[in-house]
Amino acid sequence: MKQSKLFTKTKKDAPKDEVSLNAQLLIKAGFIDKLTAGVYTYLPLGLEVLKKVQKIIRKEMNKIDGQEILMPALSPKENWEQTGRWNEIDVLFKVKSQTDKEYALGATHEEIVTPLIGQFINSYKDLPIAVYQIQDKFRDELRAKSGILRGREFNMKDLYSFHADQDDFEKYYEKSKQAYFNIFQACGLDAKIVEADGGSFSKFSHEFQVFTEYGEDNIKYCEKCGFAQNEEICDLKTGDKCPNCNEKIEEKKAIEVGNIFPLKTKFSDAFKLSYSDKNGKKQPVIMGCYGIGPSRVVGSIVEVHHDEKGIIWPENVAPFKVHLISLGNSDKIIAAADDLYKKFVQAGIEVLYDDRDEPAGVKFNDSDLIGIPYRIVISEKTLAKDSIELKPRAEEKAEIIKISKIITKF
Amino acid sequence: MKQSKLFTKTKKDAPKDEVSLNAQLLIKAGFIDKLTAGVYTYLPLGLEVLKKVQKIIRKEMNKIDGQEILMPALSPKENWEQTGRWNEIDVLFKVKSQTDKEYALGATHEEIVTPLIGQFINSYKDLPIAVYQIQDKFRDELRAKSGILRGREFNMKDLYSFHADQDDFEKYYEKSKQAYFNIFQACGLDAKIVEADGGSFSKFSHEFQVFTEYGEDNIKYCEKCGFAQNEEICDLKTGDKCPNCNEKIEEKKAIEVGNIFPLKTKFSDAFKLSYSDKNGKKQPVIMGCYGIGPSRVVGSIVEVHHDEKGIIWPENVAPFKVHLISLGNSDKIIAAADDLYKKFVQAGIEVLYDDRDEPAGVKFNDSDLIGIPYRIVISEKTLAKDSIELKPRAEEKAEIIKISKIITKF
Repeated sequence: MKQSKLFTKTKKDAPKDEVSLNAQLLIKAGFIDKLTAGVYTYLPLGLEVLKKVQKIIRKEMNKIDGQEILMPALSPKENWEQTGRWNEIDVLFKVKSQTDKEYALGATHEEIVTPLIGQFINSYKDLPIAVYQIQDKFRDELRAKSGILRGREFNMKDLYSFHADQDDFEKYYEKSKQAYFNIFQACGLDAKIVEADGGSFSKFSHEFQVFTEYGEDNIKYCEKCGFAQNEEICDLKTGDKCPNCNEKIEEKKAIEVGNIFPLKTKFSDAFKLSYSDKNGKKQPVIMGCYGIGPSRVVGSIVEVHHDEKGIIWPENVAPFKVHLISLGNSDKIIAAADDLYKKFVQAGIEVLYDDRDEPAGVKFNDSDLIGIPYRIVISEKTLAKDSIELKPRAEEKAEIIKISKIITKF
Repeated sequence: MKQSKLFTKTKKDAPKDEVSLNAQLLIKAGFIDKLTAGVYTYLPLGLEVLKKVQKIIRKEMNKIDGQEILMPALSPKENWEQTGRWNEIDVLFKVKSQTDKEYALGATHEEIVTPLIGQFINSYKDLPIAVYQIQDKFRDELRAKSGILRGREFNMKDLYSFHADQDDFEKYYEKSKQAYFNIFQACGLDAKIVEADGGSFSKFSHEFQVFTEYGEDNIKYCEKCGFAQNEEICDLKTGDKCPNCNEKIEEKKAIEVGNIFPLKTKFSDAFKLSYSDKNGKKQPVIMGCYGIGPSRVVGSIVEVHHDEKGIIWPENVAPFKVHLISLGNSDKIIAAADDLYKKFVQAGIEVLYDDRDEPAGVKFNDSDLIGIPYRIVISEKTLAKDSIELKPRAEEKAEIIKISKIITKF
């Protein structure tokens, strides 16, 4: 894409009420816009990143036999009353229609997916089933100060699994862990698995936490053996001995990027979701749920991958792979840059081409702020050697490469 | 995909309160589920169709320089008060937060996109701009009896264009018409352009209407010259003379599948959206908006393309291209069908493989109901001739084709 055609521009400042680092950088670089507290618009660059994260997630969910569906945000009050969560979930947005019908805006979808799946389960032969969706959720947060890490409206991938017995559930739960690690790795996030509160019916759930000083969560962690518990459930203090290996426990700030949760029969019981076993006997279905917020993942990537100049996108999730920059506006430079741009497009390499008539300083600052992995500069100086200058965003050093060799290099 | 793995099943009946033909067929065939009046879940087959329609739309919007963004559903009351539509739009769902902040659930997005674009427009050089999104909208409809043609929550593509003058707007408006015709043609819909109410500020807007006896709209139409007006704005009666060509006017029932609307400066004025012209003088921006509901398009396709046995998907939007059906469960048949299935998958041809242990009647009925364009049957009879039976869903006659030739045929 030509940058002169991109309707967004970088900004000197984020809104004053925006205190989170992720949203400040994403707003200044033109990836998102803040509509109101906790509510953001994805601009072309931001939507591109969001879609890449969604694609990575989708691929891994399909690999663990997830079937994609799309449930609505509007859901009838009756469904939430059946589990008692209409009054229990304090962040549930509630809506009333002209005809006084009441709905919740989905903050999660167990109340919808459980009766849905119930329509299609009769016998043990129908199990296991795993379904997922990528869809926008709503939470009436009292405070929304973490940018796209905790929005009032946010994008979510939620998978729900249905099993005939605990053993089958546990095998699937382990598979989902591996899928989650694959996702975070592909997104450039080093996520640790952490034990967390399992609610009233399971000892533990598991969170995937990315350690960073800007995190909202506190994790008690043993570097040696990997023991990790959310401080909500952990009595250990910094310096205490690890219960597994006697090494010293550290405390880490972290961002929760995913969560997997054994649901046992909590929702199956509420919605009478059962199946007939081999002997024709009714048995309750065992469920699990598995969440990752793609928008939260985007925010986490920014929290982890940035420097004082701007964002540094990992290649898999970058809005473009290459940022091609022309310096100077002689016919020769424009022709060479236009030509190279066409070659990238033809080769299927995603390229943002800064063809604007702006000074070098503006173009370099914008490029560092936007954070595309590879910057390629064409100028009088490089053209004199039939070359371009290539600099990875994450590195200090640039290298001079012949124009004829650049496409094959990518 | 193997049909034995698909968690949905076809149903004998749709819910009793579901009176629309599109939703009845889509529910029975397992494409959607009705959560409550006007609110539906897209099941795997239905989501696949919806995504194909969205992909067709996206391609045409990109071709007319639309830049994709994603605006939120939650939008602050203040934005709607600025245009007077907080109280004017009777179908606006309103939500109040714990802290008494009021939001509308987006029924349309002029109130959000206009100030957004205002952040990026200074001079005439920044124009024109066209942005679009594909996103779920909400309307508090008094009655929701048309299935996915008119839901309380529904998928929408809305594009907004911004121009320096009326002339530039009109050129873009004409380009958008062609893009819309391309979209409907690719979706198998024969849409006519119809003049409709232009609101208080334009003489006409334009609707794209598909003639069908199940339509909600009434169109006064001249077959000879193409004159067409929505009866809302037309005084002509059936049999009256066409004002253009003197031919007789007919009345047609129709479904509105798209709408394009000159907005002049209505929203630019409300949000003070202006630019500096070549002389440095402030000028208001001219706007247009352009809507297509992908979920409504899916419903319209079903209303138009079906018979008494079920849906007949046009190829471009079908969930799969081929429905491969094995009849009988001898090792020989299973091996031959499994082998052909693998070949289709390897060739990148989308195939649903009915590998279930069900009688021929059940499989044929399901196949007709689901409506995949090509049915391929492998049975003892066809295998005796090293062949399969190929039948297009839309035709009566089947043909016998050698197995060795079937992949190249597709």
